[in-house]
Amino acid sequence: MIRVGISGYGNLGRGVEAALTLCPDMELTAVFTRRDPKTLQITTPGVPVAAEAEAAAYADRIDVMILCGGSATDLPKQGPVYAKLFNTIDSFDTHARIPEYYASMDEALQSSGHIGIISVGWDPGLFSLNRMMAGAILPDGDDYTFWGRGVSQGHSDAIRRIPGVVDAKQYTVPVESAVAAVRAGENPTLTARQKHLRECWVVAEEGADRAEIERHIVTMPNYFDEYDTTVHFISLEELRRDHSGMPHGGFVIRSGKTAQGEACTVEYSLKLGSNPQFTASVIVAYARAAARLAASGETGARTVFDIAPALLSPKSPEELRRTML
Amino acid sequence: MIRVGISGYGNLGRGVEAALTLCPDMELTAVFTRRDPKTLQITTPGVPVAAEAEAAAYADRIDVMILCGGSATDLPKQGPVYAKLFNTIDSFDTHARIPEYYASMDEALQSSGHIGIISVGWDPGLFSLNRMMAGAILPDGDDYTFWGRGVSQGHSDAIRRIPGVVDAKQYTVPVESAVAAVRAGENPTLTARQKHLRECWVVAEEGADRAEIERHIVTMPNYFDEYDTTVHFISLEELRRDHSGMPHGGFVIRSGKTAQGEACTVEYSLKLGSNPQFTASVIVAYARAAARLAASGETGARTVFDIAPALLSPKSPEELRRTML
Repeated sequence: MIRVGISGYGNLGRGVEAALTLCPDMELTAVFTRRDPKTLQITTPGVPVAAEAEAAAYADRIDVMILCGGSATDLPKQGPVYAKLFNTIDSFDTHARIPEYYASMDEALQSSGHIGIISVGWDPGLFSLNRMMAGAILPDGDDYTFWGRGVSQGHSDAIRRIPGVVDAKQYTVPVESAVAAVRAGENPTLTARQKHLRECWVVAEEGADRAEIERHIVTMPNYFDEYDTTVHFISLEELRRDHSGMPHGGFVIRSGKTAQGEACTVEYSLKLGSNPQFTASVIVAYARAAARLAASGETGARTVFDIAPALLSPKSPEELRRTML
Repeated sequence: MIRVGISGYGNLGRGVEAALTLCPDMELTAVFTRRDPKTLQITTPGVPVAAEAEAAAYADRIDVMILCGGSATDLPKQGPVYAKLFNTIDSFDTHARIPEYYASMDEALQSSGHIGIISVGWDPGLFSLNRMMAGAILPDGDDYTFWGRGVSQGHSDAIRRIPGVVDAKQYTVPVESAVAAVRAGENPTLTARQKHLRECWVVAEEGADRAEIERHIVTMPNYFDEYDTTVHFISLEELRRDHSGMPHGGFVIRSGKTAQGEACTVEYSLKLGSNPQFTASVIVAYARAAARLAASGETGARTVFDIAPALLSPKSPEELRRTML
């Protein structure tokens, strides 16, 4: 049995806990939290909840620690601390800071003799893998990544910070005609506006200036100004009823030509009822790989690019060759 | 530079030769053939063509030998012979006989201290990888593989063997309503007939009994009797003009649920202008991986399941993390 710890019990941590129930070869050992452990009610019976500061006491009882903190402030601080004690998995997703985070994790993991896989999930993660592999196979071609239709947490938060806004959800929506042009092998050059729409569902305070809120949203630099954005005002009840889920997904398309000039298109697409639950499912499969690599003595930081796919599956290499190849 | 040999110069061998021109880190050393080498005109200037029997003389000049023979009779015989002398890549695609072929290749490769990757291509190959990974990530779900629209060589050959047939091409076509039901998460149970149509373009001898040829095709056991098959008689000129390509492709779809019950769909799809040229492109990327694994001292047989994706790319791990993750 692979013994797993979870650090952080938000949507992702709860998703990991649930995903482990579908893995007969893995078990949850403990959940670690920054809150008062007594206030945390987890789902798995008999599993202790402990304070983060107590994690060291579990070092010999946990094969892989799954770090479910956020990329902005949690992981850059927590990651290297946990890496001194455990094999780790995280979903660090600030693309621009990955080399820096990799270096700090690699140093901590090498020095403690552990292994860690960083930036696991679907983007970065499965999407990265598909971009990379399709590019290696079809060197002459272009990559396109479309996201959605799905909820962007960052954009929803940005709307919530506007004065007069009670709550909001923002959906990123791929532009269908752009996806169709890419699939047709037209290799178009697309601006941000031509690739994605932004759709906002906003609850305003009573008496708030809705026109001003809308203007504030659609002109917001980086977040909305480069996109066609639609704003819909709804009631809090409607928001809760119709927009409480966290669906997401998207497409990675490589459109290229063989050396002899034949057009080829490779497409990977995800349609996810729940972004954090699917991310958790990916993370748990990679935790299995980390435990196996650690058992064979490997140390240091890895990414999805470094992991042989067979390590993700509970099936034996023989069974995989016989049934899945 | 990774020095590559090609054994067999049919569509696949020519595709490999061309694909190498897009790889700045690889070069073609020699082409081996069972024909009289003097009769073979290859594309790469200055590269020797040699008889298969002379391959041993090239053992220290070739890092990876790409075996471009067929799975029915060539590879089971040639594979273990080449494996005594070279690191190898092949596209062995008789799914049912993979465990047996793996065992014979593994034995030869281990005894000679070489590495080989078997069954490389898109099915087996990239499709297998996606079936396997999606199943490891979403254990609660169903797999669907659809092939086409594309030319099936085996089915085309079967038609050509019918008395009165001059030439023929058979297209395997996925049933659109079935694909749509799978994508919609309906997890249908589908018969062979419900998944694929078979479309035949046939040139008959003058005076041949076309009704009899059609009856012969649509009732042919294993090949056609379990499918809805349409037969179109055309002239040889039309066949050459409209059906000389070898397009193919298909979809691998995993339709599952997270442990918390949210529906997720993972789809991988290929639309290939040329089946052998794309297969050759996949093989060349895996040849790069084989050369790297051999350089690090690994031996024995591998499949796509065992290969860390980063090994396929000419880019360094640092560059991959910085630009592709």
